[in-house]
Amino acid sequence: MSLVNENFLLLTPNYLFADIAQKVSAYKALHPEADIISLGIGDVTQPLCPAVIEAMHRATDEMASAQTFRGYGPECGYDFLREAIVHNHFLPRGVQLSIDEIFIGDGAKSDTGNIQELIHHDCVIGVTDPVYPVYVDSNAMAGRAGANVVYMPCNAENNFVPQIPDRHIDVIYLCYPNNPTGTVLTAQQLQQWVDYALRNDSIILYDAAYQAFITDPSIPHSIYEIEGARKCAIEFHSYSKTAGFTGVRCGYTIVPHELSATTGDNRRIPLNHLWERRQCTKFNGTSYISQRAAEAIYTPEGKEQVRKTIGYYMQNAHHMLATLRSLGHEVYGGENAPYLWMRTPEGYSSWQYFDHLLHNAHVVCTPGVGFGPSGEGYVRFTAFGTHESTAKALKRIKELKN
Amino acid sequence: MSLVNENFLLLTPNYLFADIAQKVSAYKALHPEADIISLGIGDVTQPLCPAVIEAMHRATDEMASAQTFRGYGPECGYDFLREAIVHNHFLPRGVQLSIDEIFIGDGAKSDTGNIQELIHHDCVIGVTDPVYPVYVDSNAMAGRAGANVVYMPCNAENNFVPQIPDRHIDVIYLCYPNNPTGTVLTAQQLQQWVDYALRNDSIILYDAAYQAFITDPSIPHSIYEIEGARKCAIEFHSYSKTAGFTGVRCGYTIVPHELSATTGDNRRIPLNHLWERRQCTKFNGTSYISQRAAEAIYTPEGKEQVRKTIGYYMQNAHHMLATLRSLGHEVYGGENAPYLWMRTPEGYSSWQYFDHLLHNAHVVCTPGVGFGPSGEGYVRFTAFGTHESTAKALKRIKELKN
Repeated sequence: MSLVNENFLLLTPNYLFADIAQKVSAYKALHPEADIISLGIGDVTQPLCPAVIEAMHRATDEMASAQTFRGYGPECGYDFLREAIVHNHFLPRGVQLSIDEIFIGDGAKSDTGNIQELIHHDCVIGVTDPVYPVYVDSNAMAGRAGANVVYMPCNAENNFVPQIPDRHIDVIYLCYPNNPTGTVLTAQQLQQWVDYALRNDSIILYDAAYQAFITDPSIPHSIYEIEGARKCAIEFHSYSKTAGFTGVRCGYTIVPHELSATTGDNRRIPLNHLWERRQCTKFNGTSYISQRAAEAIYTPEGKEQVRKTIGYYMQNAHHMLATLRSLGHEVYGGENAPYLWMRTPEGYSSWQYFDHLLHNAHVVCTPGVGFGPSGEGYVRFTAFGTHESTAKALKRIKELKN
Repeated sequence: MSLVNENFLLLTPNYLFADIAQKVSAYKALHPEADIISLGIGDVTQPLCPAVIEAMHRATDEMASAQTFRGYGPECGYDFLREAIVHNHFLPRGVQLSIDEIFIGDGAKSDTGNIQELIHHDCVIGVTDPVYPVYVDSNAMAGRAGANVVYMPCNAENNFVPQIPDRHIDVIYLCYPNNPTGTVLTAQQLQQWVDYALRNDSIILYDAAYQAFITDPSIPHSIYEIEGARKCAIEFHSYSKTAGFTGVRCGYTIVPHELSATTGDNRRIPLNHLWERRQCTKFNGTSYISQRAAEAIYTPEGKEQVRKTIGYYMQNAHHMLATLRSLGHEVYGGENAPYLWMRTPEGYSSWQYFDHLLHNAHVVCTPGVGFGPSGEGYVRFTAFGTHESTAKALKRIKELKN
């Protein structure tokens, strides 16, 4: 009998960003003098803001004394952070949540990867294409692949708006503002998805990791701004890009009490309890220091400082968008998201243009095809560089022939 | 069709410690004046040691400046920590590991819960009984329950040594020093398990979370001290009890390169790569601050400070053991582990004695039956209290009639 979960063997051998890192390392080994600028992986460059740093020092000091020491916290997060989220993020947008609908975790990647444990092995999942690889790979590891995965193409031809399916899909992953394309859905477009889900008894897994970068006031920050979403959607949030927490590790997931799903014998099971059970069994809470750090984002100073850093990155995005367009490139995103999605010049596949930029401009982008078949012929740039490195990269791209 | 993973519905509705917390809350609500002492859940009470606190402040300061800021780290951990583990924990015990056999995670609970993703759905797992509930529940969530789970009783009658099975078991969970019984296996006994695994092509999942509490120099700290273990065992480590990291969240898992498992068509698949793929897909690394904190444990000051704290808890354990035995109780563990496992007085089930202690001594223990059927008739005490609270709890137990 097999001892191995053979689903793993059907996965592509490496994770996209590991492939990129290997290519860059190999190039660096041959050209140690090359000053390589990464606009590839979505990691931030600006330090944590002062309010967060102060909170982390304070929390560390608490851990130094028996009177204020904190051991195991609640698996699903401290109330101080859950309350700060309810009052500062959701209430101002007219969304009412109770704190036990909010689950603090160590980042959106873990939660978006683990959430599929709650659903039946045989479910059909739908993903936009291109797509954040975690949604597909985490399902593949659990045996949902092939006919169980429906790809919904998003490209320039359909203005990056996935078409509402004409078949039944059980679970739909939506990420808006989108990674990798940087595009958004309007409230009306999102309402169509919620209506589809309610009609089909489907679940929407809504990844809002990039909501802080929305500048257009008409674009929803949360799917719960849409009527009916509490009955059909789980939402994922990240502090990684919002507040530079890529190395701090904190995020949260919302599973509303109204959300339930059906069993084989037609009982309705609330998913909030299932996720709580999953987290209490296979997770032991997020670092106390990271939770205090996240709480500090919601103080008046924290809010102002975080806004400033996001503004810094969006200045990059606008600069990149203007420059690349002035060079005649076809570029999407970058207005409500830290990602730009550029069609490769004629004759270049995604990986060919990646190589071209690496070799001739010493700039690292992400090949669009790494995010799915509909990403072929595109590359992704991130706006998370410094002003200086971004300007330098753009100057080098300008000097290229293509 | 079912949308829900119905395996979740077969689980008992709550996690053991949540049940206990509810009982204690209910009692407190009725008796707000009661000064309740918890010797129940295994959380620590002593603060983080100075070397760790300093490292956390330093790491926080690094995050405050663009020059030293750390964003995404390697998913499987920073080399500085992996190297510290190899050189300080394993080499002195004669165990050679390469750093890519070590995977830094956010704690042993996550890793022991997630590791079963690597194995085939139909595998038969073996657990000692009583058992840390995570092993069983994480498998139940994945559909391994009923006939796919073999319980190996450990009780006073077999001196808490699980019998080598006379049938084939694919995956065996062993935790030594044991949670909950506080008992240990000798090198010879452990060798028998390794030999069984090699003979049967089984995998041993070895939870070494409590190794730091071993006082007897002949007891192995790692299964890799046993010949052949690198071919059949994965080992889990925690900093939670070792260094008070229950709120800091850091641990690590070892998957040796020699360890492989078979597919249905008899190929051998190295599990190191599978676990790496799992972690790179569904986890985004452990907090940088937590990893620097863990590194500090391996400095000369850190080692000394951590040893002192462990000594503090083991003083509690010895005091508890002596007192409870002097009262005529039958008590196990507590010599190489922070847990004591006590047979309940005649006429008391585990939960009855739990209630008796809570109501009449205001002391919280953990009912043994919560860890499995063979735990019925026992309760667990932990040595993680302060000297003062432990002494007070013992005094109250002395004054009880039973």
